[in-house]
Amino acid sequence: MPSVASPALANHQDAQLRQRAARVVPGGMTGHLNAAALPAGYPQFFERGQGCRVWDVDGNAYIDFMCSWGPNLLGHHHPEVDAAAARQQALGDCLNGPTPRFVELAERFVARSAHADWVLFQKNGTDATTVGVMVARAATGKRKVLVATKAYHGADPWCTPVPNGITAEDRAHLIYYTYNDVASLEAAAAAAGDDLAAIVCSAFKHDIGVDQELPRPEFARRARALCDKAGAALILDEVRAGYRMHAGGSWETVGVRPDLSAWSKSIANGYALAAVTGVDALRDAATRIYTTGSFWSGGVAMAAGLATLEVAESTDVVAHVHRMGQRFRDGIAAQATSHGVGVRQTGPAALPLILFDNDPGVDRGAVFAAEALRRGVYLHPRHNMFLSLAHTEQDIDLALQATDAAFALVAQRFGSH
Amino acid sequence: MPSVASPALANHQDAQLRQRAARVVPGGMTGHLNAAALPAGYPQFFERGQGCRVWDVDGNAYIDFMCSWGPNLLGHHHPEVDAAAARQQALGDCLNGPTPRFVELAERFVARSAHADWVLFQKNGTDATTVGVMVARAATGKRKVLVATKAYHGADPWCTPVPNGITAEDRAHLIYYTYNDVASLEAAAAAAGDDLAAIVCSAFKHDIGVDQELPRPEFARRARALCDKAGAALILDEVRAGYRMHAGGSWETVGVRPDLSAWSKSIANGYALAAVTGVDALRDAATRIYTTGSFWSGGVAMAAGLATLEVAESTDVVAHVHRMGQRFRDGIAAQATSHGVGVRQTGPAALPLILFDNDPGVDRGAVFAAEALRRGVYLHPRHNMFLSLAHTEQDIDLALQATDAAFALVAQRFGSH
Repeated sequence: MPSVASPALANHQDAQLRQRAARVVPGGMTGHLNAAALPAGYPQFFERGQGCRVWDVDGNAYIDFMCSWGPNLLGHHHPEVDAAAARQQALGDCLNGPTPRFVELAERFVARSAHADWVLFQKNGTDATTVGVMVARAATGKRKVLVATKAYHGADPWCTPVPNGITAEDRAHLIYYTYNDVASLEAAAAAAGDDLAAIVCSAFKHDIGVDQELPRPEFARRARALCDKAGAALILDEVRAGYRMHAGGSWETVGVRPDLSAWSKSIANGYALAAVTGVDALRDAATRIYTTGSFWSGGVAMAAGLATLEVAESTDVVAHVHRMGQRFRDGIAAQATSHGVGVRQTGPAALPLILFDNDPGVDRGAVFAAEALRRGVYLHPRHNMFLSLAHTEQDIDLALQATDAAFALVAQRFGSH
Repeated sequence: MPSVASPALANHQDAQLRQRAARVVPGGMTGHLNAAALPAGYPQFFERGQGCRVWDVDGNAYIDFMCSWGPNLLGHHHPEVDAAAARQQALGDCLNGPTPRFVELAERFVARSAHADWVLFQKNGTDATTVGVMVARAATGKRKVLVATKAYHGADPWCTPVPNGITAEDRAHLIYYTYNDVASLEAAAAAAGDDLAAIVCSAFKHDIGVDQELPRPEFARRARALCDKAGAALILDEVRAGYRMHAGGSWETVGVRPDLSAWSKSIANGYALAAVTGVDALRDAATRIYTTGSFWSGGVAMAAGLATLEVAESTDVVAHVHRMGQRFRDGIAAQATSHGVGVRQTGPAALPLILFDNDPGVDRGAVFAAEALRRGVYLHPRHNMFLSLAHTEQDIDLALQATDAAFALVAQRFGSH
């Protein structure tokens, strides 16, 4: 099968940059973009992006299914977004106060978010989840915060998934529940007693390396009811899912509205922006906390955010990324069957995850992803992926040609089931 | 004195935007850019910037002494910085991994920082101070962190100056000392016992509303010695002062090198970027913590950071902002004497603070700043200000014409001392 034994990608520039980085950056790279967490062959450094394609520093092009881990919602260099950002850049970005874009975006953002009466802007997803918790605590005067075991809500000491460099006190008031498990949520709320400030829920369960789960309506409703009973705030973490599940907020899909939502990633199509939306009852608390950042009011990201909203609404990006994700998912399912390889595809089609059966060490997943990469498709073997408005049916079908060969290699290496 | 009774600035657009903002943003605006903390007449919303000038949304122009609260180091729209950012923007910003700019900036940043062997990048100053503390704790396995009373190190729960929405546990392991007070620092270190992870020091004392203080050499040396004795990390918070006090790091002025430094604000001339630099002994700890952000590796801010370094070094920006700050300070001192009004000017000349004698409520300061504003000079009555490379002698002298009239008004309203 010569088609399977494709040569390794050129990686000379990448290797050189890694060597240089290793001298001046701990480990050469840190955080979620660290290629050390990916199969051998994945590039660390990238040169450019266009639409749904990215080019690494050695000139290899990929149809990209990570979308910068979410931010690339409309495609790299979407003309309307980049034009809006450039217009604002020509005026000014970081000034002594916000620009009119701040008000315009706040109005549009609130109008769009089904639950929201107000919004605050930040830069990082972690900023948004942290501000959400602070607002809830300020409003309630209570301390306990319920979070799902292994859920990712950012990388501050209170939430980073690797608990090095933190203290026990950073999590003294967290109580854990199991996502979608009503009994565990009730037990956690009971443990909080009369000290419950908030329940934090991801828009859907997207823990790395395990099957994703859409929110069960009865779970979402119970979270809502427990907050209502305790006078606590229901905080929806939209950082991952926002703008890809539902235009008005991801839990519109289950008919439950949060009190606070935390947003980032996609909301300005790659320009650095985050936001917290909230209900009127929490407005006063939001004025009493003090959070800020040197660049939080920067006009360029807000201009990009306005254009992103405009394009997202006029194109119905939610429907598009669902359709493209479903086309990819259907193709993958057919190929898995055809090659006799068992896979599980979970979560929203627009944020797909593919895990192989009988693959606890992700060996099959790694071979599959690495082979797809060599054939010009950038997948992730363990983390949910992302579709964008720039993905066309042709892109999906091209990607499926690569995954078909990747399935063949998995079947050859590991056998059919 | 008709020259004193200048008319109020046009503020129709600003008022309209404030009304709109009040509906969709808690309090209309939050954080350090909230104009509610400034005297009446200050605009909230800005249209554009150029060099050391900013224009509010009503078209009023100001010679700006806040420099976006620090970030505007080289002047708005510095051609080399904006060109570098635009070149990178045309390629890509937020991709599946960093761009070559990440390595290039890391190399330049480390080479420039006298103490540094490595660097990590973030987006907010708060990110940088928080990451610094995490690295120190990961390296030492200890918990206690010494911070100066009333020092500002960001707005996360562990450090926000307004303790609403936080819990006691967020600060369980902070121990407070008085900046520049060796005895208080020794007492705090003694209180930490064998659990000392870090001493955090601002580059100079720049607490809002009180006289600034340059670091006393014996204080800095004692902080260094206490860390050495305990195996703790000396963390220098350079977010405010970085790139304006000394090219190699602010404590080069007192001959003391930290183990970690936290940077943001000026390092990319207004593009959103932060950084932590550290010594080799802490490199392993920095690989063991997990912090990240969706936009932390964005190439555009790093391209801007590279150009900012290039311009800062080729122009000796430190010397320029010192010279312009000193010219302003000398002029203010002469005017104060001439008008018989007592003022105290403290801190580095490049980050000046002007406080009036006998002015606990900042009434004199408010009249002074508001009058300067009406005459086209944007000052802050309580917070340190910032000079930039774009300030010329002519700009300083023009500003001094406005402050002379402002002093006259203060003397008229409050009398000479």
